[in-house]
Amino acid sequence: MGALLMILALLMLPGVGFAYYYESGDQTPLLYSAFASFAIGATLFFSFSNQDQNIRKREGYLIVSLSWLFMSIFGMLPYLISGVVDNLPDAIFETVSGLTTTGATILTDIEATPKGILFWRSMTQWIGGLGIIVLTVAIFPLLGIGGIELFVAESPGPTSDKLHPRIRETAKRLWFVYIGLTVAVGVLYYVEGMNFYDAVNHALTTMATGGFSTKNDSMAYFSPIIQYTAIFFMFLSGTNFTLIYFGLTGRFKRVWHSDEFKAYVIALVIFLILLVGPVWYYSAEGFEKAFRDTLFQITSLITTTGYVTSDYTAYHSGLTLIFFMFLFLGASAGSTSGGIKFVRHLTFFKNSWLEFKRIVHPRAVVPLKINGDRVTGKIITHIMNFLLIYLMIFVVGSIVISLMGYDILTSFGAVATSLGNVGPAIGRVGPEDNFAFFDPFSKIFLSFLMLLGRLELFTILVLFTPYFWRAN
Amino acid sequence: MGALLMILALLMLPGVGFAYYYESGDQTPLLYSAFASFAIGATLFFSFSNQDQNIRKREGYLIVSLSWLFMSIFGMLPYLISGVVDNLPDAIFETVSGLTTTGATILTDIEATPKGILFWRSMTQWIGGLGIIVLTVAIFPLLGIGGIELFVAESPGPTSDKLHPRIRETAKRLWFVYIGLTVAVGVLYYVEGMNFYDAVNHALTTMATGGFSTKNDSMAYFSPIIQYTAIFFMFLSGTNFTLIYFGLTGRFKRVWHSDEFKAYVIALVIFLILLVGPVWYYSAEGFEKAFRDTLFQITSLITTTGYVTSDYTAYHSGLTLIFFMFLFLGASAGSTSGGIKFVRHLTFFKNSWLEFKRIVHPRAVVPLKINGDRVTGKIITHIMNFLLIYLMIFVVGSIVISLMGYDILTSFGAVATSLGNVGPAIGRVGPEDNFAFFDPFSKIFLSFLMLLGRLELFTILVLFTPYFWRAN
Ligand SMILES: [K+]
Ligand SMILES: [K+]
Repeated sequence: MGALLMILALLMLPGVGFAYYYESGDQTPLLYSAFASFAIGATLFFSFSNQDQNIRKREGYLIVSLSWLFMSIFGMLPYLISGVVDNLPDAIFETVSGLTTTGATILTDIEATPKGILFWRSMTQWIGGLGIIVLTVAIFPLLGIGGIELFVAESPGPTSDKLHPRIRETAKRLWFVYIGLTVAVGVLYYVEGMNFYDAVNHALTTMATGGFSTKNDSMAYFSPIIQYTAIFFMFLSGTNFTLIYFGLTGRFKRVWHSDEFKAYVIALVIFLILLVGPVWYYSAEGFEKAFRDTLFQITSLITTTGYVTSDYTAYHSGLTLIFFMFLFLGASAGSTSGGIKFVRHLTFFKNSWLEFKRIVHPRAVVPLKINGDRVTGKIITHIMNFLLIYLMIFVVGSIVISLMGYDILTSFGAVATSLGNVGPAIGRVGPEDNFAFFDPFSKIFLSFLMLLGRLELFTILVLFTPYFWRAN
Repeated sequence: MGALLMILALLMLPGVGFAYYYESGDQTPLLYSAFASFAIGATLFFSFSNQDQNIRKREGYLIVSLSWLFMSIFGMLPYLISGVVDNLPDAIFETVSGLTTTGATILTDIEATPKGILFWRSMTQWIGGLGIIVLTVAIFPLLGIGGIELFVAESPGPTSDKLHPRIRETAKRLWFVYIGLTVAVGVLYYVEGMNFYDAVNHALTTMATGGFSTKNDSMAYFSPIIQYTAIFFMFLSGTNFTLIYFGLTGRFKRVWHSDEFKAYVIALVIFLILLVGPVWYYSAEGFEKAFRDTLFQITSLITTTGYVTSDYTAYHSGLTLIFFMFLFLGASAGSTSGGIKFVRHLTFFKNSWLEFKRIVHPRAVVPLKINGDRVTGKIITHIMNFLLIYLMIFVVGSIVISLMGYDILTSFGAVATSLGNVGPAIGRVGPEDNFAFFDPFSKIFLSFLMLLGRLELFTILVLFTPYFWRAN
């Protein structure tokens, strides 16, 4: 666990280094940011290095939650010191939206923002993506959070309280995939016509399923070939990175062995087939443009990236609702995407189907299998409970936002996109809007929902239960 | 099972007798209705009396589904033959809305409808309420549907394939409660100033949690004392009838022993306390009126009755959303109310809470208890799956309705209120609207959702699975 915190601290540094290198007149705030990042890293390392092996599970929840909180506090310094953001709630919102890879923004004119700050903004998403890989592979299995760690291939599950050597191995591989693909997509963007600055920024926010752009028009600003590239890499960033590693090393059978990957691919194809016709009809565009827009928005929303190339709320109320539903999907466990994720949906669908078998044959033992392995009742219960708590937080959150005076669709949209770490939504927070108009309380509340969603709900919620605080 | 079908057939007859007695110029269509009802009863009795003990579980799903389908088909004859409704989709909608105790209507001027037909309309709800008691007590436990039968007090659960004598005893008691309370509330309504016709109609639709009224203004037409009476009897009609029987026989300890009853009462009180202030503020009415309206609408929506005395969508978007959320509650198992019901919510909430204990103490055995009894993992899974399927049908149903060209809130409202058998909703199907404007497909689709919700989803859904059709 101490090792993880060292890593967390260290990976703040390259981010700051990059930011420092790219500064364009706003150097001082970024230097402060670098100092702050180093400070938090050193503090964490110093605090915990002397009790490395003795940190208990319950302290883990607190450390993970506090790590993200600290990162958010120090991460917002560049915005505040530079004056790009002039109040605390906005700074909290923008930073948390970055670190959680949500990508919702309070900036009304992105292109007018200093390039150094804007780079830091993209970098927060990349750091967030890296952080979520660590959590998924190394921390959540130990903490028993979310119930999906068993489906991240090669993860040995919660068998030991110490960092398993194989986990460290897996984590290294995934970082290799993450960093490698970031470089690859950045080079492609550059070759395909983006300038160097835009290419780097979009590479960072593509692989993090972040969705921050340097352009007010998001990806709609760029050429079709760049949009297709973005689609492909958004798809990859929503794929379990272990499977990408298998793919890169030629083990394609193991890739297709994953039920979640199959469901993810099949769902994308089915949604594309179903929606391309209606979008073509209602958008009154050429077929290629309608096809590209449909595929782009489906991929962007399902992977929770949140780039946009067209206003999907402008076609038809039924299509708006379908695109809104995508906010609840999420892509794969073991990727950087947020939201519920396919393996949970798959568990729910498979179990629903088997429930019918169970009521018809009440005495039969009807096991549920994923990737060929039997899933225990405990994990099925945990996952279905996760789904219900997720939906309940969505409902309660929407009530809170609507009580602040916003219409129901805007409230649904803002809460769903925050909780799912997506970015755009429906209502007044549609794909062409921003979150600047919300009051300070709502901004902080939505930031909290982003953190809640990003840390798989339980990590934070457990801190509010007596089980966590009760001695031993 | 044969006994049940005889009962089902027989209880069509008093309904028809009433209708015949009350006819006010529209006698012939009601005579046909009487004949039809008798015909279906006789047919069912004749078909199954010779194989009484041999009906298998799987045939049960089909029989229950078909019984409601047949009742709907014959129940709509009075509307069609009288000409009150001039097309099939509208007749289907109105009849299914009656028999499922939903209470949504396509009639635009209720007071202009002939009194005999209007009485038949109220009677369909009362028959539906009676039917649902039979299903809950005698049929669902045998079929293993819904997972809540174990919480209906004194129900012995799915231990035998034959109609247990104690079940017959329980069913008799519940009918006694149902019929007794119907008479009681009818007498009270009459004494408090309703005319005889209105008192009888409203007595039938109050105890069925039906919500059909003989007035265009629903219960807003009547005096405050009648509204308070309605509140009290709506509350009772949403209570487990076994508990009312205990209450009537003085066993109050057993009433309060029910966790579901406690949750139901506490929720009503909490919602009242939370909402009375805001409603008072936004309605600009006197406090007593605001208090009465708040309590009335909360009780009406949660018990899925659907009477209205004020437009709860006119206050504030946040309050509208809260009232909309009530459509997903439902009252108690073993009552005539529809929807999800408190015992399922209770199971979900308790299990969510325990999930945190389980992740903090992964090796501990953490059982879930309701009414002091341990609930098996199988039932927890079944109930949580029910909740998720319910919500999934809500989402898919809303997409279907919105694709027919209605706005998102109207689609959400129409689907939620149909599935939950409530009646009024939000959007264009608010408390002062009706369902006449929907296209024929949507009307039939919403009718299907009403049946789906009323038969606890699984009864109908199982017919669409191979497990049901595969030989043995
Ligand atoms: K995002
Ligand atoms: K109703």
